[in-house]
Amino acid sequence: MTELEIPPEEWMAGHPPPAERTVRFADGSYYRWPRLRWSFSHMEQLVPTKAAWRGPGAAHALPVEPVALDHLEVETTDGTAMRWEEVMSSTHTDALAVMHRGHLVHEEYFGATGPHDRHLLMSCNKSMVGTVAECLIHEGTLDDRTLVSTIIPELASSAWAEATVRQVMDMTVGMRFEENYLDPESDVWTFLRATGMIPGGSGDPTIFEFLAAIAPEGPHGEVFAYREPNIFVLGWLVRRVAGKDLATLASEWVWRHIGAEHDWLYMVDGTGAETTAAATLRDFVRFGSLILRGGEVAGRRVLDPDVVSAILGGGDPEVFARGGYDTLPGWSYRSQWWYRHVEGRVCPVARGAHGQVLYLDPANDLVVVRFGSSPQPPSALLDHVMWPMIDAITARLVD
Amino acid sequence: MTELEIPPEEWMAGHPPPAERTVRFADGSYYRWPRLRWSFSHMEQLVPTKAAWRGPGAAHALPVEPVALDHLEVETTDGTAMRWEEVMSSTHTDALAVMHRGHLVHEEYFGATGPHDRHLLMSCNKSMVGTVAECLIHEGTLDDRTLVSTIIPELASSAWAEATVRQVMDMTVGMRFEENYLDPESDVWTFLRATGMIPGGSGDPTIFEFLAAIAPEGPHGEVFAYREPNIFVLGWLVRRVAGKDLATLASEWVWRHIGAEHDWLYMVDGTGAETTAAATLRDFVRFGSLILRGGEVAGRRVLDPDVVSAILGGGDPEVFARGGYDTLPGWSYRSQWWYRHVEGRVCPVARGAHGQVLYLDPANDLVVVRFGSSPQPPSALLDHVMWPMIDAITARLVD
Repeated sequence: MTELEIPPEEWMAGHPPPAERTVRFADGSYYRWPRLRWSFSHMEQLVPTKAAWRGPGAAHALPVEPVALDHLEVETTDGTAMRWEEVMSSTHTDALAVMHRGHLVHEEYFGATGPHDRHLLMSCNKSMVGTVAECLIHEGTLDDRTLVSTIIPELASSAWAEATVRQVMDMTVGMRFEENYLDPESDVWTFLRATGMIPGGSGDPTIFEFLAAIAPEGPHGEVFAYREPNIFVLGWLVRRVAGKDLATLASEWVWRHIGAEHDWLYMVDGTGAETTAAATLRDFVRFGSLILRGGEVAGRRVLDPDVVSAILGGGDPEVFARGGYDTLPGWSYRSQWWYRHVEGRVCPVARGAHGQVLYLDPANDLVVVRFGSSPQPPSALLDHVMWPMIDAITARLVD
Repeated sequence: MTELEIPPEEWMAGHPPPAERTVRFADGSYYRWPRLRWSFSHMEQLVPTKAAWRGPGAAHALPVEPVALDHLEVETTDGTAMRWEEVMSSTHTDALAVMHRGHLVHEEYFGATGPHDRHLLMSCNKSMVGTVAECLIHEGTLDDRTLVSTIIPELASSAWAEATVRQVMDMTVGMRFEENYLDPESDVWTFLRATGMIPGGSGDPTIFEFLAAIAPEGPHGEVFAYREPNIFVLGWLVRRVAGKDLATLASEWVWRHIGAEHDWLYMVDGTGAETTAAATLRDFVRFGSLILRGGEVAGRRVLDPDVVSAILGGGDPEVFARGGYDTLPGWSYRSQWWYRHVEGRVCPVARGAHGQVLYLDPANDLVVVRFGSSPQPPSALLDHVMWPMIDAITARLVD
C-alpha cells in the first residue's frame, strides 16, 4: 500500500502505530500531504497549543433537522457538472455543516475528522482576531486610526511603520512580501517557519524579527493585498494594547459565551504567541451563528451590535477589485473577514488554506462550515467548486 | 536580577517575552529549575498534548465554605516547627485545595499557577491509569491474572514477560531499572527521554523499544518497588485490550462524568502515546471527591462500587515494607495508588515528582490536593513536611 492509499483515519492508528504510519512535527511530515489529512484534525497532538477556554457552562445545543443534500448536483464555474459525492471527495472534504434558520440541517464527517476533533482553521483564525479587534475598538482600547508603529515601536522601520491599524485589519498594507504557496522559495514559507507552524532551523528569525524586517512597497490603503503577516501584526497589536494573550482575549470576548463544546485551540510559536487555531465543526458553526444573529446566543447578548454591524457591513469592492483576485469577482474585505457580494446580499466569509470555509448568509439565515485537507494550500484552487457548492446548498434550502 | 530571583509568573510574560525570560522545550530549559516553576502550569504551551474531554455538560459547582489555615503550625518529622507561610514557600507550593465534608474550605494559588491553569501531575496520572484499569477489570476487558506478555507480545523478552497485570498495577515487578532522579546517568532519565517528556537525541529508543529492553531482576510479586516504567506498561496494556487511547478511556470512564471545568490533558510521545497529565486544582479535587464518595458525583453513579472498593481498600503493608521506603512507614500500594495507613484509617494517595499530592481521607471526608514545583524531583524529599502539614489540616478541621 502506498502512502497515497492509506485512509486518513489510519495514520497514527494502533498502540503503537507502525513507524511508517506515524506522523511527526519535527521532520515536517505532519504538514506534507497525505499525512496532513490526519494532522489537520489532531494538531494538539503534534505541536504546543494554548486554549481559549469554553467557560464553565453547558454546551449550547444545536437543534437538528436533517435535510438531504446528497442528491445535489454542482456546476463548477468552469462548467463541469459534479455529483455531490464527487464534490466532497475531489475537494478532500473533512467535515461539512449547514445551519439554516437556527437548525443544523446537515452535519457530516469524513476521513480523520470526528465531531470532537478540532480541525485546523488556518487563516480562518484571522476572522476571530478581527472580531476581537473590533471589540477592542468599540471598548476604546484600540483606535483603528492609530499608526501601527505608535503601538509597536519594534515595527518602526518596517512596512507597517506608516500603516494604520485599520489598514492592517483591511489588508491594504503595501509590503514587500511574496505569498505564493506553490513556490518553496516564497516569503510565505519563511513566515511559516518563523511562526513555528512548520519546523525551522536554529538560524531562522523569530516571527517578531521577521516582521520587523519586511520592507514597505507601494502605498497603503488603496489596494487589497492579502498577506498573512498582517494577521500576526493584528494579533500583536491586540495583545499589546490589551496586555493579554490572544487566547485569553478570544475566550473573554467570544468563546466562553457561545456554548462551545470544546476549547478553541491556538497553536503557539516559541515565544508563546498564538499563530493559527483549531476548533470543532459544531463550535465553528456556533461562532458563525453568533455573528449571523447579530451577536446574540439564545437571546443573550454577547457582542455589541456595533461590533457585529462592523463585521456584517462588508468592505469596499473597489479596493478589493484592484487586488486582482480573479476567482473572487465582486468580493470585498474588512476587519479580517472576506465578503462575497452575491445578488445584493453581503455574505461574510472566513477562509483558510487547504479548504477551510465559514460562510454566513444573513439574508437567508444560513451558516456553512466546511473543513478540508487538500494537497495544495491556496484557497483559490478550490474557488471554482466551493461557491457553486454553497449556491447549490442555498438553492436547496431557500427556494 | 538572577534567574533565581525571577518570580515564577514572570517567565514568558510580555508580548513578546524578553529572550532571557522565554521557556522552551527544545533546549530542555523548560524542565530545569527555576523555569520549571512556570512550565509545570503551562505544559500545553510547550509540548504536544491529547485531551480527555470534560463532556458537554456544565461544570459541577464546588460549594465554598472557607476555613482559615494560615495560623497553623506544622512540626516536621525531624522536629522543626514551621509557620504555615513557611511551609507553603519552602516547599515551592503552586496551589493547595482542601475539601471537607463536600465543601471547599481552602483554595489558594501561588506563583505561576491560576485556577484555570492545568498543573503537571507527574506520576499522579498513574492513579488515573490504575482507576481505568480497575474499570476494565470490572468490565471483563482486562484480567489482572494475565501475563503481560500474553497481551503485549513485544514484551516477551523483557522484565514483564512473566509478570502479571496485577503485579504491574501493584508495582511488584522485579526489573533492572535504576530510578534515581538525583543521578543524571540513572535509567529514569533515559526513560524520560524515551517518553518525550524531556528532549532526546535522534539515537534515543522509542518508549516501546526502551521497555522491551528492560531486563528482569529478582522475583515478581514479593517486594514493592516503585518503578515509573510500570505506569507506561499499564497504559500500554489498557490501550491494547480496549483498542482506545488513554485519553479516550480516561474521558469515557471518569473525566466526562465528574463535572470538570477543563479537559484533562495528556502529554504525548512521538507515537501519540500518553505519558503524564495535567489538570486544574479544582478538577483534581473533583476526581478525588469521586473516589472518596464511593464513585458518585452529586448522587449520580459514575464508577462501579467494586471499582471504588478496590481502590479504597489499600494494599499489603508487608509487601510495601520490604521495599525500604523509609519516609513512608506503614504505607501500602495497590492499583497505582499509594496508601497512608494512619491511626486505623486507610488514606489513598496519588503522588508525583516535584511535590504533587492528592490525599483522600475517607473516614474524615477529606480531600487535599497540593501542586508544587520544587527543584528536585523525588517526593521523598518533601515527606518530612507533607504529611505533618496534612495532619495539621486534618486536626484543624476534624477536632
